[in-house]
Amino acid sequence: MPLKNDRLLRALLGHPVDVTPIWIMRQAGRYLPEYRATRKRAGDFLTLCKTPELACEVTLQPLQRFPLDAAILFSDILTIPDAMGLGLTINEGEGPRFARPVGNEADIAALKVPDPHTDLGYVMDAVSLIRKELNGRVPLIGFSGSPWTLATYMIEGRGSKEFSKAKKLMFDEPLVMHRLLETVTESVITYLNAQIEAGAQAIMVFDTWGGVLTPRDYRAFSLHYMEQIVASLRDEAEGVAVPVVLFTKGGGQWLEDISRTGCDAIGLDWTTDIGEARARVGRDVALQGNLDPNVLYASPERIREEVALVLDSFGPGSGHVFNLGHGIHPAIDPDHVAELVDAVHEISRPYHSAASDSG
Amino acid sequence: MPLKNDRLLRALLGHPVDVTPIWIMRQAGRYLPEYRATRKRAGDFLTLCKTPELACEVTLQPLQRFPLDAAILFSDILTIPDAMGLGLTINEGEGPRFARPVGNEADIAALKVPDPHTDLGYVMDAVSLIRKELNGRVPLIGFSGSPWTLATYMIEGRGSKEFSKAKKLMFDEPLVMHRLLETVTESVITYLNAQIEAGAQAIMVFDTWGGVLTPRDYRAFSLHYMEQIVASLRDEAEGVAVPVVLFTKGGGQWLEDISRTGCDAIGLDWTTDIGEARARVGRDVALQGNLDPNVLYASPERIREEVALVLDSFGPGSGHVFNLGHGIHPAIDPDHVAELVDAVHEISRPYHSAASDSG
Repeated sequence: MPLKNDRLLRALLGHPVDVTPIWIMRQAGRYLPEYRATRKRAGDFLTLCKTPELACEVTLQPLQRFPLDAAILFSDILTIPDAMGLGLTINEGEGPRFARPVGNEADIAALKVPDPHTDLGYVMDAVSLIRKELNGRVPLIGFSGSPWTLATYMIEGRGSKEFSKAKKLMFDEPLVMHRLLETVTESVITYLNAQIEAGAQAIMVFDTWGGVLTPRDYRAFSLHYMEQIVASLRDEAEGVAVPVVLFTKGGGQWLEDISRTGCDAIGLDWTTDIGEARARVGRDVALQGNLDPNVLYASPERIREEVALVLDSFGPGSGHVFNLGHGIHPAIDPDHVAELVDAVHEISRPYHSAASDSG
Repeated sequence: MPLKNDRLLRALLGHPVDVTPIWIMRQAGRYLPEYRATRKRAGDFLTLCKTPELACEVTLQPLQRFPLDAAILFSDILTIPDAMGLGLTINEGEGPRFARPVGNEADIAALKVPDPHTDLGYVMDAVSLIRKELNGRVPLIGFSGSPWTLATYMIEGRGSKEFSKAKKLMFDEPLVMHRLLETVTESVITYLNAQIEAGAQAIMVFDTWGGVLTPRDYRAFSLHYMEQIVASLRDEAEGVAVPVVLFTKGGGQWLEDISRTGCDAIGLDWTTDIGEARARVGRDVALQGNLDPNVLYASPERIREEVALVLDSFGPGSGHVFNLGHGIHPAIDPDHVAELVDAVHEISRPYHSAASDSG
């Protein structure tokens, strides 16, 4: 089944497109009433993730409303530690909790790489089902958390502001921390390759907490492992390249380092000017981003203006996938999302004329 | 009364020093049992801020334990909006709350610049008293929140993760937001000049939330107003220069812009390599920072190693004030702070030999 809309894959590889593609982080989420209805039917968030039919249903919901250029698997970054036996629960308003966080070398030595087809079979089933239901309309993005990001939750046992336990382990027992990161990295590679085999057509790695590190620790404890992932993923599936996007929130100072991992694209939060980012990383790496998610609270006219500023900053030519700089907030009006998607497609068209693409 | 230890002022102005000076953000704080005792006696946090004798007492506590090179006024950044009548309360574990946040143009038009000698007289009394008690031992740093940072609290009515209300106002009614920022800026200037008159010998502006903006919005809504503050502060007091430090948490991408405000020094969080920062901003601006506050959870040996890395990255010569990249956490062992302060003084000495200072 050839893709009817391959803008996302083309833009991630720097190939010419007619308009700038757009998808939205957390596009299947609480801002949509139909998502809230399915979530209610599921009972709780994890059941929604773990039931392929329901995960497929919510994955497709935003595409029924908006002409988005990609679907992204509905799931959670914490499926891997959950499959390792840490006992995940996710309660409304409280965030994720692990019943059995890892605290020491023995805990870490006992961790096993989950089998993606059995321990995480529900994810692969969701990917296959979504691909079938998408029927070639747009590509499907698979994803994982970065090893560092997963490790922080596994050690802290929950979300954190300061990451004291994870950093204490990193500073005092760096070899133990590296052992944990190695096990998680192997798990991520196996998991993402299984997603690709099941039908994922692009891959995104969410390094949500890499930005809390010093530059040196970021390179050693986060980027190093993402580089291993990039090197170990299947390059193509079904005869088509599978691009990889690395997104470190708060990583704007380290784009050059990220670009040297071999990734196809870098996700940007909104604290970096995307035109400056483009100048810094060159043309071999695409950029994904980077509207401030809060712009969606503003009026439709203002949303359009801010979209124009991002597109203008990136400038003519391919290599840009429009997105927010972080996940969409639950209180956003879906009509504002419609305005955003239309604005990106309309305003970007002149930047992709034949003359521009050769520029 | 000439200063017995003027390392801080010398380093902020790039003049030679014998060792790198150090102070610690939130050095008078909950990690000290004697602070917790005074706080308990005061009853609540705001009473502690508003009682000059108690504010003086806790300001001096860390200096009785550690050979720190500066005192910093014990106060809160929200004293200005409190004096504007927004009704501040600060409850343990809940953070600050305003009873009457500003929501619209009328609220903002009604705001008055507080008189620092009456509305904020308790702060000036604390500054005078601390100077008297310090008796020239080390300089006293005065401070304020940045206009943008204060405005976010005034609009949100409390701490925020996403700043949706503040940003909605900024996007939809930029002129109203600028009017608010102008009033707050005038208030900050008056307040800081009164602190200098009362005895503050250096000034720090905490732009805690500037880092949540896009580069363009940061320049227009935060940095622009800090630049006005720098230009409007008294250059000297008692015949001595009063250096100004600007600290934008998450501002590592914008150091060049910050350096052009005319400030004497830039505060750095730990996500920027201080040596790279020095290369970027040149020798006209000093740097303050930038150890990851989480390093203080690690062993004394590890603390020493991380201190050495920061000092080595900055390299030889003056222009560096050692600090954490953010406030010290309440759970830190005071013995680890002792190790930090000693390590900075000991390890930095070779970087300040005569040969190095000319380098």
